[in-house]
Formats: sequence, structure tokens, C-alpha cells
Amino acid sequence: MLTLFRYNWQVREEWFDWCEGVPDEDFTRERIGGVGSFLRTLWYIVDSEYSWIRATVEEPDVQLPFERYQTLSQVRALSNTCHHEICPVIEQWTPDMDSKKVHASWRPGETFSSEQVFRHVIAHEIHHMGQLSIWARDIGREPVSANLLDRSLG
Amino acid sequence: MLTLFRYNWQVREEWFDWCEGVPDEDFTRERIGGVGSFLRTLWYIVDSEYSWIRATVEEPDVQLPFERYQTLSQVRALSNTCHHEICPVIEQWTPDMDSKKVHASWRPGETFSSEQVFRHVIAHEIHHMGQLSIWARDIGREPVSANLLDRSLG
Repeated sequence: MLTLFRYNWQVREEWFDWCEGVPDEDFTRERIGGVGSFLRTLWYIVDSEYSWIRATVEEPDVQLPFERYQTLSQVRALSNTCHHEICPVIEQWTPDMDSKKVHASWRPGETFSSEQVFRHVIAHEIHHMGQLSIWARDIGREPVSANLLDRSLG
Repeated sequence: MLTLFRYNWQVREEWFDWCEGVPDEDFTRERIGGVGSFLRTLWYIVDSEYSWIRATVEEPDVQLPFERYQTLSQVRALSNTCHHEICPVIEQWTPDMDSKKVHASWRPGETFSSEQVFRHVIAHEIHHMGQLSIWARDIGREPVSANLLDRSLG
């Protein structure tokens, strides 16, 4: 599971780098499908992972309003800050904690296991990165590779 | 890992069902990005999973030429046939087999672990399903949900 998180983090960094080469209007433009733009997708991935991983350690949800992250550098800084906080949670996780119960304020009355939440967060990011790859081609650019095997992930 | 495979299989079935409601010309039309169409994406996911999982049990690659799977019913039947063969491999896998070495004829000279291959196959399918969700909106339809938590996956 940890390797799939590392995969997502590596791919996300590559998308951030990739976005540096994209004109602002392409980066922020509203698009059809997904959550609507490169910018909003990156923010959404960060926000979602942050909220869910905090929930696994019983930390309350922190609002990260999209309106405050309107540039690539802002959303990248947000990603770094959140990553710094949640990375240790994931890196230090042990299998005996997989069944730990998780409650999330945005899913009142429901109980999940940590393992379910981890899987959800992983699949969520891969799904949305796949969407970015279509939009990349829409603007005539080669997307970041999604290939997992050609990465040094152990 | 098994749960993520089950997730992919469930989502794939839902995409097959979804495609039943899509006109043939939308299903087969060449699109920008990914591997180029709904049809080809579904074929590609099946072919890739089949080849890699067979490689983990030292079975040679079997060619499944795209040209033979040109309709939804053909690619769906292919998916069922392949699934029937590889599902037991994944369902019966045990953690002690994760480090088993894998060689693939299409990656000569390289050695992977089974665990790496499993992760790759999982991420590959989620990535391409994310692409389908963009194309679904492009043709004005609501895509299959990618949400992992709202599924009975254990």
C-alpha cells in the first residue's frame, strides 16, 4: 500500500513540474469532466488525501477552500505542506492498524477501516491523474507517464 | 491488493454496462489521448492484465490482436474469458509469493517482483478508467462512479 502512495506522490510531483510548462490559461481553464480544470484537480487530490489521512488518526477535517489556491505555486505549496504532515502517518503505518475504525465528519454515521480509506485515497488520485492525461493531449502536450514499473519505487 | 483488483473488476463491469447504452459510433470513435477510444481502452486493460498476470505464473504471452475485438460484445466476452483464467491466480495469491520473480517477453532482460506487477496492473486499469470518465462527459453522459468506498468490497 505504501508503495502505491509513493507512486502517487511521485506522479503528482511530475504533474506539478509538467504544469510549470503550461500557460496559465490552460492550467486554470474550465474543462469538461472530472472536477473541471488542472488546477482544481490538483487541489482536489491534495485536499481529499489530507482530509482522509487525518481522519485515520482522528484529526478533525481542516477546510482548504479552493478559492485560496488559485495558482500553481499556491497549490504546490499546499501539497507540500499537507504532504509533510501526512507522510509520516502513512510511512509509519503497520498492518495491525489496518482494521482501525475511521469516522469522517463529511460522511456522518458511517464507519470505515483504515485499510479501506487508504485504498480509496490511492484509487482516487490515480483516477484523477488519468483524467489529467486526457486534458494534456487536448492541449497538444505529452502527459506525465503513469507507468509504475519504470520508477524507482522498490 | 486483492481488494483493489476486485474494485477494478467491478468498475470494469460497470463500464461494460454503461457502454451498452452508448451508440456504436461513440463507442468506437477515435478520441484524443489515452489509447484512443472506449473500445480500445477496454481491450487494452484486459490484454494488459491478462499478459502480466500470466507472466506471474510463468505462462507465455498470448496475442489478443485488437483487430479481433471490434464490438462491445466481443471485448466483453474477451474480458470474461481472461478473467475466468486469471481470477484464481489473484484470489489464491499469498503474501509469501509477493517477491516471486517475474519475466515478461515484452520486457526482455528485466526482472520484476510479483508484487510490483500486481501494483502496476492495478494502477494501469484505474488510470485508464479515469480517462473513460472524461470521454463520457465529452459525449454528455454521466460516467461510472470511481468511488471505492461506496462499494461492497470488504
